[in-house]
Amino acid sequence: MSAAMPNASYSITLRLRMSADDPSAIGRTTTAIGEAAGAVTALDFVETQRDVVVIDVTVNAGDAAHAEGITDAVDALDGVEVHRVSDRTFLLHLRGKLEVRSRVPLATRDDLSMAYTPGVARVCRAIADTPDDARRLTIKGNTVAIVTDGSAVLGLGDIGPAAALPVMEGKAALFKRFAGIDAWPVCLDTKDPDQIVRTVEAIAPVYGGINLEDISAPRCFEIEDRLRASLDIPVFHDDQHGTAIVVMAALINALRLVDKRLDDVTVALSGAGAAGMAIARLLLREGVGELLVADADGIIGGDSHPCVHESHVWLRERTNHERRSGTITDAIAGADVFIGVSAPNLLRPEDLRTMRPDPVVFALANPDPEIDPVGARQHAAVVATGRSDQPNQINNVLAFPGIFRGALDARARYITEDMKAAAARALAEVVTEDELHPSHIIPSVFSDRVVPVVADAVRRQAEAEAEANRSLTAEVTE
Amino acid sequence: MSAAMPNASYSITLRLRMSADDPSAIGRTTTAIGEAAGAVTALDFVETQRDVVVIDVTVNAGDAAHAEGITDAVDALDGVEVHRVSDRTFLLHLRGKLEVRSRVPLATRDDLSMAYTPGVARVCRAIADTPDDARRLTIKGNTVAIVTDGSAVLGLGDIGPAAALPVMEGKAALFKRFAGIDAWPVCLDTKDPDQIVRTVEAIAPVYGGINLEDISAPRCFEIEDRLRASLDIPVFHDDQHGTAIVVMAALINALRLVDKRLDDVTVALSGAGAAGMAIARLLLREGVGELLVADADGIIGGDSHPCVHESHVWLRERTNHERRSGTITDAIAGADVFIGVSAPNLLRPEDLRTMRPDPVVFALANPDPEIDPVGARQHAAVVATGRSDQPNQINNVLAFPGIFRGALDARARYITEDMKAAAARALAEVVTEDELHPSHIIPSVFSDRVVPVVADAVRRQAEAEAEANRSLTAEVTE
Repeated sequence: MSAAMPNASYSITLRLRMSADDPSAIGRTTTAIGEAAGAVTALDFVETQRDVVVIDVTVNAGDAAHAEGITDAVDALDGVEVHRVSDRTFLLHLRGKLEVRSRVPLATRDDLSMAYTPGVARVCRAIADTPDDARRLTIKGNTVAIVTDGSAVLGLGDIGPAAALPVMEGKAALFKRFAGIDAWPVCLDTKDPDQIVRTVEAIAPVYGGINLEDISAPRCFEIEDRLRASLDIPVFHDDQHGTAIVVMAALINALRLVDKRLDDVTVALSGAGAAGMAIARLLLREGVGELLVADADGIIGGDSHPCVHESHVWLRERTNHERRSGTITDAIAGADVFIGVSAPNLLRPEDLRTMRPDPVVFALANPDPEIDPVGARQHAAVVATGRSDQPNQINNVLAFPGIFRGALDARARYITEDMKAAAARALAEVVTEDELHPSHIIPSVFSDRVVPVVADAVRRQAEAEAEANRSLTAEVTE
Repeated sequence: MSAAMPNASYSITLRLRMSADDPSAIGRTTTAIGEAAGAVTALDFVETQRDVVVIDVTVNAGDAAHAEGITDAVDALDGVEVHRVSDRTFLLHLRGKLEVRSRVPLATRDDLSMAYTPGVARVCRAIADTPDDARRLTIKGNTVAIVTDGSAVLGLGDIGPAAALPVMEGKAALFKRFAGIDAWPVCLDTKDPDQIVRTVEAIAPVYGGINLEDISAPRCFEIEDRLRASLDIPVFHDDQHGTAIVVMAALINALRLVDKRLDDVTVALSGAGAAGMAIARLLLREGVGELLVADADGIIGGDSHPCVHESHVWLRERTNHERRSGTITDAIAGADVFIGVSAPNLLRPEDLRTMRPDPVVFALANPDPEIDPVGARQHAAVVATGRSDQPNQINNVLAFPGIFRGALDARARYITEDMKAAAARALAEVVTEDELHPSHIIPSVFSDRVVPVVADAVRRQAEAEAEANRSLTAEVTE
């Protein structure tokens, strides 16, 4: 994959000045941009000053060097002057991407006396008397904290809490856009698991759910476990479970296409970090035939793997029954499915020849997948990636909005394994039999069917579990 | 003061069913409400069902018992049936008073690629390289945390973090309404000062300022001091400094009216909690002639006062130079000014006779002041309270929005004593010489001159201090 493929995320606007008397100037400009492999997406006249025309040309580039090359090519033209270059992504981020708004009017003294003192005191007293009323009478019922320490942000790694904030703001915007949930960034200036746990416990009263985000493994496992145990609201590490749920949904549909059953297939999984472990857990729980997990040290459970972490021991007990050794290239030999959540360019397309017929390939490393998807498609029956410019994008946006919507609506205390499995099945079913196709195993993030269907499945499962707990408690009490 | 004075904060809507054939029913209903001392504020026809008319009558009551009495009086009428009673304040609070909104569009895949992955990665990298850019490219530059542990909420006391949330939501709504600031409630499930300090330090990267709120004394002093020392953003305990600033502004104008100078007057201050200490500090700093501070144990610095806290020792060294003993009633004898931030009904109007001519009385305990303001007005030249139904309301809303607006705009690291004094003077000056009157010593909270004037004074003072620091650093370096 070329990283320099022009796209909106690297879009620049060139403000150009050119002679009003030169009818060829605009044509020469767009030609020069095209020859520099830039994609013109908009052309706006700004003003005419005497004999000079000012024009804004918006261009998608691939990366910083590409944008510079395009700018230079335009600037080299006779009679065209580049007056200013602005980066649309940075313009969009000025002053941040979120705002807090009042849902109530504050125009008059009466408004103030109801929303603030003295009227608010009665609402406070009601919550002090009946703590459950906080979900009804405050923002708690619809509000999720997006908690990060900035230690594993996108492909950028440990960039810290301040630099992680634009991602958390974006995630909050997605929560609102797709599920109407009010989400708020909590970027923590500590990487100590104890301190993270205590901080989230301390701020929890305001929130109806906790979305852990971009916290590096293995700390993320401990932090999630401890918060699940101590808090009375759902805690969900999206990098783990969101990814696992969308992968499982895509796999259900891919297997429908190749007419295989999950309990018959062998899956080779590359990556044993946050996402890899969650995918492994969900695959095992749903009864996958055989699972081989490989990381940089080779296939886990094989004799040559050092097996140092707790999670390695856990996998060794449940996967790789033949104790195979080697790299991920060895692991895919005889496998039906490859799932990568690891690193770019681990496999060559021809490596897929060792897989069983109709291989399914999910190469999810971003932005550069484990295998070139175009090459992979020559050997595989189904190919999915994490990229938006390829078919079958595995995108967490398909899961987390509906999952939290369902959990909040059910006032769930946990997001359980059964709720995750229900979400995966519901998401798979959004793609109807008619729509199912090797290039369409998973819905678009813009499908407006996704969130209601996922939310409904999660809510129903949560309510069924709450009902079962009540019956159990009743039996025990009797 | 009767707590049962009808007001919008205790407003109910009665849904009534009455015969369509009885022309007197509505008249009899409003008469009955009036006789029960309720105030009808709206009357809406809902529908006519065959021979029955359904009407919503909205009524201001004084408290719960009063609302019940009104309802009973209406229900007792012939041919009028109370179908439902709803409380407008509770209706207003359903689902909370805040929402988080995206400031950027998320309609298309291009929008997503700029606001979220992959475009957002460049913004993250820019902040990782230049941390100061967080104020420009994220919400940090316009966002304030409203931090409480729920230990001293309004007149309610220690009701805990969940029950305090409606107040913090209201405060956030005021921040937006009056200063365009995005404020977010941080309600902490801990009362341990160490844990509060560590939690606020951990969450600080998202915020451009910290507003401490409703944290009980003396913990609030330590918490504020430690956070001021460790954070690089302003920390401001509004119950202390917001109150002190508005009191100082009102006092400046009251003394203009009675033609006295601050350095000539004796102030008797009732209350040595968060607000009292901050008022004392600001009065001393601005050069008050003499100050006597009394709490429930009597006048601080007198022999009979136990003088247990650090703050008592601090006051003893700086106030009550004649070492007077006694209660607040003794303290006001010979004083020019009484300021109360303590408890209801400590003084009788006739007690003011012992004060020097033209006494100034600020009785700020809420909802019931230290002295009946109507009675006090018979003896005092100027009377102010915390109540919105009396002239001269001392309301923190006059200070905190402008102070944070100015501090954020200046990217200030501290809100210094000089900035607070500048805010008080600017707030006083909003009331022009023409407007100044014993019933108008302080602007209305709805005056649109207040926030710009206060913000401007704070910003200019902050910039002057930053400039002075730069000069000093330059000198030291030379």
